[in-house]
Amino acid sequence: MRTRAAVAYGPEGRVVVETVELAPPGPRDVLIEMKAAGICHSDLSFLTGERTGVDYPLVLGHEGAGVVLACGAEVTGVAPGDHVIPVGVPECGGCPACLSTRTNLCDEYFAPGDQRPFRLGDRAFKGFCELGTFAEHIVVRETRVAKIRPDAPLDVVCCLGCAGATGLGAALYTARVEAGSSVVVFGLGGIGLNVVEGARLAGARLIVGVDSNPSKREAAQRAGVHQFVDPRAIADLPGHLRELTGGGADYSFECVGSQRVLRDAVECTRPGWGTTVTIGVLPGDQEIALRPRALLEGRRLMGSYLGNVKTRSQLPGLVDLYMEGRISLDSLISHRIGLDDINRGFELLASGTATRTVIGF
Amino acid sequence: MRTRAAVAYGPEGRVVVETVELAPPGPRDVLIEMKAAGICHSDLSFLTGERTGVDYPLVLGHEGAGVVLACGAEVTGVAPGDHVIPVGVPECGGCPACLSTRTNLCDEYFAPGDQRPFRLGDRAFKGFCELGTFAEHIVVRETRVAKIRPDAPLDVVCCLGCAGATGLGAALYTARVEAGSSVVVFGLGGIGLNVVEGARLAGARLIVGVDSNPSKREAAQRAGVHQFVDPRAIADLPGHLRELTGGGADYSFECVGSQRVLRDAVECTRPGWGTTVTIGVLPGDQEIALRPRALLEGRRLMGSYLGNVKTRSQLPGLVDLYMEGRISLDSLISHRIGLDDINRGFELLASGTATRTVIGF
Repeated sequence: MRTRAAVAYGPEGRVVVETVELAPPGPRDVLIEMKAAGICHSDLSFLTGERTGVDYPLVLGHEGAGVVLACGAEVTGVAPGDHVIPVGVPECGGCPACLSTRTNLCDEYFAPGDQRPFRLGDRAFKGFCELGTFAEHIVVRETRVAKIRPDAPLDVVCCLGCAGATGLGAALYTARVEAGSSVVVFGLGGIGLNVVEGARLAGARLIVGVDSNPSKREAAQRAGVHQFVDPRAIADLPGHLRELTGGGADYSFECVGSQRVLRDAVECTRPGWGTTVTIGVLPGDQEIALRPRALLEGRRLMGSYLGNVKTRSQLPGLVDLYMEGRISLDSLISHRIGLDDINRGFELLASGTATRTVIGF
Repeated sequence: MRTRAAVAYGPEGRVVVETVELAPPGPRDVLIEMKAAGICHSDLSFLTGERTGVDYPLVLGHEGAGVVLACGAEVTGVAPGDHVIPVGVPECGGCPACLSTRTNLCDEYFAPGDQRPFRLGDRAFKGFCELGTFAEHIVVRETRVAKIRPDAPLDVVCCLGCAGATGLGAALYTARVEAGSSVVVFGLGGIGLNVVEGARLAGARLIVGVDSNPSKREAAQRAGVHQFVDPRAIADLPGHLRELTGGGADYSFECVGSQRVLRDAVECTRPGWGTTVTIGVLPGDQEIALRPRALLEGRRLMGSYLGNVKTRSQLPGLVDLYMEGRISLDSLISHRIGLDDINRGFELLASGTATRTVIGF
C-alpha cells in the first residue's frame, strides 16, 4: 500500500514528508494505522549530525499509538481493531531476558533483523527503532506491539511509548524507589517529569527537582516535586542536595545527558546505598567520569533503557495508571501539529520551546 | 603503658619499630594485646608517597587479631580475655546505616574522632584506620572491636579483618551473588581469591578468574575458579569473557585498581542485569571512565567497602565459615615474620612476592 511518511535523507536539519510504498505485513508482522506520534530528542539527533553511520534514508519516529489494520498469519497477540503502542524494545517472551524479572532488554533487541518495510523507487529502507512512527501506516514485528485498552486517548498515551515509559519506569522498575525514600531528579523535561511522577507513585517522602530553567518550576511542582533547585545559584550543588535530603538522597536520576550532571547526581546520594539511575545520553564521545571514592563509599550506578519496562506485558499497566488518574500525561504535551508541520515540531524541540509535541494523523 | 609499634614518619619507604607510650583506655575504649597482624597494600601506600596530606607520624596496620586485656567503664560488648578482630569500619549499632541492611558504613566511619593513643616524647599520634595493628598493644573504640569465638587461630583469622571481609563480603553482601550465577573476578591476589571463595560459597555455576600472572592459576583453582584467563593473550577480553559466560557475566569484580580493568569488568557483564563490583582503589587522581552505553544497556556498578560486612555483627560469622572448613584462609598466607622484620614484609608485598604476610607478636 501507499502511505505518507517523514523521511530523513541525511543530517540535513529537516525531514521530507513523502508518499512511500509500504510492504504488506509478513507472517509475524502487524500493519498499524497511526493515530498519534510524539517527537523525541533521539529523532532530532538524526537531523543534526549527532549520529554517525546512519543508514539513510530512514523514516523517523519511535513513539506513537495507533489501531491494528491487519496481521500476518502467525500473529496471535493482537487482532485488527486493537489499539496499540508500537515500541522500540521488543518482548519476545521466551528469551532469558524476557523470562527474567530484572530486565526489559529482550535478546531480540540486540539482534534486530533487517526489515525494510518502506520503499521509494528502488530503495527499501528502515524505520527508526524498527518502527518509524512518523508515518500514517507502519508495519512492525508483533514482538514490538503493546496492546492497550480501547478507551485510552491515543493522542495522549502515545507519549508512554518512550518518554513516559522511560521516566516512570526508571523510578518504578529500574530503581524500584521505596515508600519513604528521598529522590533527586536532574533535568525536568519530558523524561524527568515522568521520573517525578513515578517517584511520587512509589511514595517518595521527598522529591527534589534540579533544573537551570526556572520556568520548569510550576510543571515540576504539579508533577510532585517538593523542592525546586536552580543549580546556577549554588556553589556546591552535591553538598547542598545532601543537606536538603538529610545526608544524601536514596535515589538520584540523571535525565540531562551530561558528564558533569551525572557526576553531581552520584555525589548527591547517600554513602552506603545511594543509587543513581543514568537515563540521559551523553553527547558525542563523552564518557562517564567519576571520582572513584564516590562508589567505594558504597554508592550504586544503574543504567536504564526505556525505564526497564517490559513493553508488551508492562506498558499496558502504565496506560491504566493514566486512565485511573494516577499520572498526568496531558500536561506533558505542549504542542500539537499535523504530519505536514513536522519540521516545525523539530524546531520547537531544538529551541527548547516544546516539552512534547504530538503529531496527529 | 609502654609497647612496641611500627611507626611511619613519612613516605620514606620504611617504618621504624619504636617503643612508644600507649594511653590507657578511655571509658568507651578497649585495650588489646595483638597476637597477629596482616600487611595490606593500603599500609604500604603510606610509605610510597601515594598518600598525601597524611598526619605523620602514624602507627600503621589495620588488619589483625588479639586478646582483650582491659576495657573502659562503659564498654559492654567485650571483656578481658575475649578474642577479637579490631576493624577499621565501626558498627555503632544505632545510626541509620547500622539499622539498615544495605550498608556497613556506620555514620561514625564518616565522622571519626581524633583519638591519638600513641605518644613518643611530646608527640601524640593516631593509628591508621583508628587502629594501628602493627603494635604489640593497641587502644581502640569498642565500636571497632569484633568479638570472635575463642578456638579460632588468631594468626590465620586476622586476615579476615580486611582482605577476607573485603573479598568474601563483596560476593556475599555487596553483590549478593545467587546460586547458578556466572562470575568473573579480575585480579587474583588476596582480595580476588576471597571473592572467588565467596562466589563459590554462594553457589556460582561458573567462576572465571582473570590475572596476567600465570603463577596465580593454581591457587585460583584451589579457591574455586573454573576457568583461568591470562588477559595478555586475548585481543578482545570483554568479548572473550562474554562468550565464556554465554552472553555476559551476571557479576564481575574489579580487584586490581585499574581504570582499564574496571572498564573491561563492566563490558564483560550481561546487558540488562550484569553487575560490576568495584573494590580496587584507582591510583592517584585517576577517575572511573566508562562508555556510557555500557550502562544504558542495563548494567550496574556498585562500590564495596570492606565487603559491605557489618563488622561487629557479621565478621564473627566469617570466622565461623573458616572454622567449619568452608573457606580456606591458610593458603592466602604466604609469609610469616616477627614485628622487627616488618620492613622485609613491606618489601615482599611491594615486589609482588607475598600474597599475605602475617606478623606474629
